[in-house]
Amino acid sequence: MISRLIHAIREKHAPVVVGLDPNLKFIPEHVLREAGRSAKESYLGDDELEVAAEAVWRFNRAIIDATYDLIPAVKPQSAMYEQFGVPGAAAYLKTIRYCHEKGLIVIGDIKRGDIGSTSEAYAAGHLGRVEVGGVSVRAYDEDMATVNPYLGTDGVKPFVDVCAKNDKGIFVLVKTSNPSSGEFQDVVTDDGRKVYERVADMVNVWGGDLIEDGYSNVGAVVGATYPGQGRELRKRMKHAYILVPGYGAQGGKAEDLVNFFNEDGLGAIVNSSRGIIAAYKSEAYSRFGAERFAEASRAAVKDMIADIRSAMESAGLPV
Amino acid sequence: MISRLIHAIREKHAPVVVGLDPNLKFIPEHVLREAGRSAKESYLGDDELEVAAEAVWRFNRAIIDATYDLIPAVKPQSAMYEQFGVPGAAAYLKTIRYCHEKGLIVIGDIKRGDIGSTSEAYAAGHLGRVEVGGVSVRAYDEDMATVNPYLGTDGVKPFVDVCAKNDKGIFVLVKTSNPSSGEFQDVVTDDGRKVYERVADMVNVWGGDLIEDGYSNVGAVVGATYPGQGRELRKRMKHAYILVPGYGAQGGKAEDLVNFFNEDGLGAIVNSSRGIIAAYKSEAYSRFGAERFAEASRAAVKDMIADIRSAMESAGLPV
Repeated sequence: MISRLIHAIREKHAPVVVGLDPNLKFIPEHVLREAGRSAKESYLGDDELEVAAEAVWRFNRAIIDATYDLIPAVKPQSAMYEQFGVPGAAAYLKTIRYCHEKGLIVIGDIKRGDIGSTSEAYAAGHLGRVEVGGVSVRAYDEDMATVNPYLGTDGVKPFVDVCAKNDKGIFVLVKTSNPSSGEFQDVVTDDGRKVYERVADMVNVWGGDLIEDGYSNVGAVVGATYPGQGRELRKRMKHAYILVPGYGAQGGKAEDLVNFFNEDGLGAIVNSSRGIIAAYKSEAYSRFGAERFAEASRAAVKDMIADIRSAMESAGLPV
Repeated sequence: MISRLIHAIREKHAPVVVGLDPNLKFIPEHVLREAGRSAKESYLGDDELEVAAEAVWRFNRAIIDATYDLIPAVKPQSAMYEQFGVPGAAAYLKTIRYCHEKGLIVIGDIKRGDIGSTSEAYAAGHLGRVEVGGVSVRAYDEDMATVNPYLGTDGVKPFVDVCAKNDKGIFVLVKTSNPSSGEFQDVVTDDGRKVYERVADMVNVWGGDLIEDGYSNVGAVVGATYPGQGRELRKRMKHAYILVPGYGAQGGKAEDLVNFFNEDGLGAIVNSSRGIIAAYKSEAYSRFGAERFAEASRAAVKDMIADIRSAMESAGLPV
């Protein structure tokens, strides 16, 4: 899988991923209104959840249509769908399938992690196949997913095994982008390593057998908001692709992002969610207005790619 | 919420929770066959996932019917539903609603945890309400949920806030029951505390304002497989209710479980999943056969409660 991602990044000259985190606050009034009509025509049941899920799906589709030719991948954030219950799960699945139709790689931002047999079920449902009465079927079928390491190797290994078997990839949370990520992740342990460094070293172990084109199908999440740690972790996990959230709305800047790349100009993929999907709400793209929100997202994607490419060029990295 | 749980535990004299982790391997052939007929009559779409989800729901319903009068709570494991995609999400919701009809407290074993705004969405969808076009609705509506602390306070706080607002509860993963839980959780940090002790101390902070009847709506998960740590953590988190997985199939024994209780005979609730729902597959209950799997579960619940009560009595704890 990682070689597919690298190929797509090179082809589009864009080491970026658009985060599909459709908070209802970002969805224009007219999309919600249209969703209300459509949901009431086609569904029975919990009306509000159906309307919200329909709005999420319509919002996503418009943004995907406006950006898919520019980007290699998208990262839907599971929580933003799950909050709308069963209709939300259906919107998540529809989004994944539509992205696949458009040739995009889908990174499910699910941050799952549990004891062994349970992680097996998460891995099967998101990246692999489940067996039902002798038939093997795919459920959500993302291409890659984020994984929480707190339970240790036997929580992560089932995902690694599914990656090996189905040619999929994961990104393990190493150092997250949020303000309090240091509370447990940055603590120094008895051998001098911080907790996130211990996790990083295990990322190397977990991914050691899954290397394609110099990079492993077991990657890492390291927040753009911590560029110092990004530089260290880049060196520490030579073969890990780093998924970098926190660019834009959370405060990460392009000049800091060069820390996350290797000299080959590869090794990192930068996510922006709010900055892209809610671009029309920011001053820089307010000229588009709510009606043309998807065009605003397209303009924001172009600017983000240009921003990152220019920072990479200034740092002497190939793009 | 925690006072409701305490009341239910006292009323049934049973500090136990049944884990509804319906791995298909545990579901008898005849339930799958009947589900196959029913799913094909009532649904279109991905047949296998529909059949699996219908089987899960029928299996759960039979076990709930056979045990609800004996127990205060159930703990459905999200992964076992999520693996069957959208029909799985519907089976999860149906299970929650049915348990509520039977008066059971539902602990969603979701182990979610993300950055602030995303944890807000998980908390709203599982324990709170989501706002759609000015209307506030409930999605999954569990009573309590498990939460992963790796992202620190701003990943956990949105759950705590939702608990305060909606009278719900959470159990934060402190020391999990799986073999590799020590890999990151047991590491000694620079001030002498282990990582799980740091998390435990934060459980006290997060739950400090949510105490009812001596216990907080912010509890902790500590595995039955680590009774030594259970004893320490019991003292360290005076007001935290401890959810104790790992009894039975994972190896935790009743005499070890007394470590997790306070002198008032409260403060812990012990989970068994496989040992109850797949009881008919074990030698002890094989006399029931697959046809009478739910009766086997009832017998196993009775034995589990008797086992724990007798260990508590031997230790001089009120039951």
